[in-house]
Amino acid sequence: MNEPLHSVNALRLDAGGRRPHDDRVIVEAPIALLYNGDSFAVMMATPDSLEDFALGFALSEGVVASREEFRLVDVVRHDEGIALHAAIPQARFDALAERRRGLEGRSGCGLCGVESLQAALRPVPRIETTDSVRVDAIRAVLADLAHRQPLNALSGGVHAAGFAHAGGLLVREDVGRHNALDKVLGAIARDGIDPARGFVVVTSRASYEIVHKAATCGVGVVVAISAPTDLAIRTADAAGLTLAAFARGESLNVYTHPHRIVPAT
Amino acid sequence: MNEPLHSVNALRLDAGGRRPHDDRVIVEAPIALLYNGDSFAVMMATPDSLEDFALGFALSEGVVASREEFRLVDVVRHDEGIALHAAIPQARFDALAERRRGLEGRSGCGLCGVESLQAALRPVPRIETTDSVRVDAIRAVLADLAHRQPLNALSGGVHAAGFAHAGGLLVREDVGRHNALDKVLGAIARDGIDPARGFVVVTSRASYEIVHKAATCGVGVVVAISAPTDLAIRTADAAGLTLAAFARGESLNVYTHPHRIVPAT
Repeated sequence: MNEPLHSVNALRLDAGGRRPHDDRVIVEAPIALLYNGDSFAVMMATPDSLEDFALGFALSEGVVASREEFRLVDVVRHDEGIALHAAIPQARFDALAERRRGLEGRSGCGLCGVESLQAALRPVPRIETTDSVRVDAIRAVLADLAHRQPLNALSGGVHAAGFAHAGGLLVREDVGRHNALDKVLGAIARDGIDPARGFVVVTSRASYEIVHKAATCGVGVVVAISAPTDLAIRTADAAGLTLAAFARGESLNVYTHPHRIVPAT
Repeated sequence: MNEPLHSVNALRLDAGGRRPHDDRVIVEAPIALLYNGDSFAVMMATPDSLEDFALGFALSEGVVASREEFRLVDVVRHDEGIALHAAIPQARFDALAERRRGLEGRSGCGLCGVESLQAALRPVPRIETTDSVRVDAIRAVLADLAHRQPLNALSGGVHAAGFAHAGGLLVREDVGRHNALDKVLGAIARDGIDPARGFVVVTSRASYEIVHKAATCGVGVVVAISAPTDLAIRTADAAGLTLAAFARGESLNVYTHPHRIVPAT
């Protein structure tokens, strides 16, 4: 539970027959997020960069509005998983209680269909940053990112998210793509890096959740290596966020607010 | 909201400059699952094969134990998403109320850390099927599956799940890999196909959720194209389910209960 990778014994079947195969697999563990002693969520995540994850989740889900409102007070390792205990202001805690009846994912608290659908689509802030990103900078980051995923290199099937800014590229990995993004958002918040000055890159698709989390934290540009969803595009459009996807080699598609992506020269 | 794909206008940037690009993207919509009028969950899913999805989710999450206990009574399209209204026996509905305080994903109902972690890891049944799968049958299905993903072919970034059995290969697609699996599990239940006689194949990784859903429905063999997680392996081991992953071309790794995968001749 304390390491992001586990060794396992597998049986390898190929054209040559079957033989024992030592493999390393990514760890997926229930990680509970508790605020002021009360459990808010359990995410299936990789137990790595937990301080980044705890803060990033709280920011990207709108639990707190700044890192000053958040204090990680304990990391408790149970047999079943890990509990991240954080302290938040009482007013934020009270606001969470209001959200409890309508949460993304599983609700089951007596809501009717329309109420639960509305609760799943929370408002996003409007991104106002005028910072731009050069297309050659995106290409350089994509090339760099390919070599900055040690967990994926060892086990396969791990997502990465990065934040590229004037100081370099910060990368985090996780079994869940939204968790990888939360870790990066938490890491830049802890480092005091402005999310509006730079861009997020994800090795996965751009889903609603990815765009919503980035926009909630004030990120202006999201670049995904794989496809976008229609709801991700509509959410990015509404938030004023620049969304690019299918970013591979020399090419990328820009789906919303293309003014922030400028030519190489 | 009624179609699985949307057309969008993008801007294509590549070595030749920038130009308009018409693209098709996969639809991701909030889909609420209601039992006896009460919302249990909202999933972000592709609005396609909704009858399969509704039944498959109810079976794989243990809401009902058989298709006879489930009746889809209404599909209501709202501006925000789609509500799937189903009727289930009162005893099943009462059991759901017990589970409400500890749900996977977001709970936030006053649980402490250990309680919420325990609730995230529900028990799995023990799979007893003695049916086996020939390794050349798996290879043939993998080759077939590559050509049976029309949504992915048009938009990219879409997951597929299939069930291979004596009658052929049944495939469903979705923006979420667990939703694709739910659609397949619902489809075979509606067709009266025995989940213990055949195997599930997923184009994605094998996570805890994939294995748990398959085991809950009585599937004996799961084959994933990408990597497994450690928790998926442990869950498959405990359930007596055969889990294979990295199934590509001639090779695959078997992580648990390999006796169900037999040589080609």
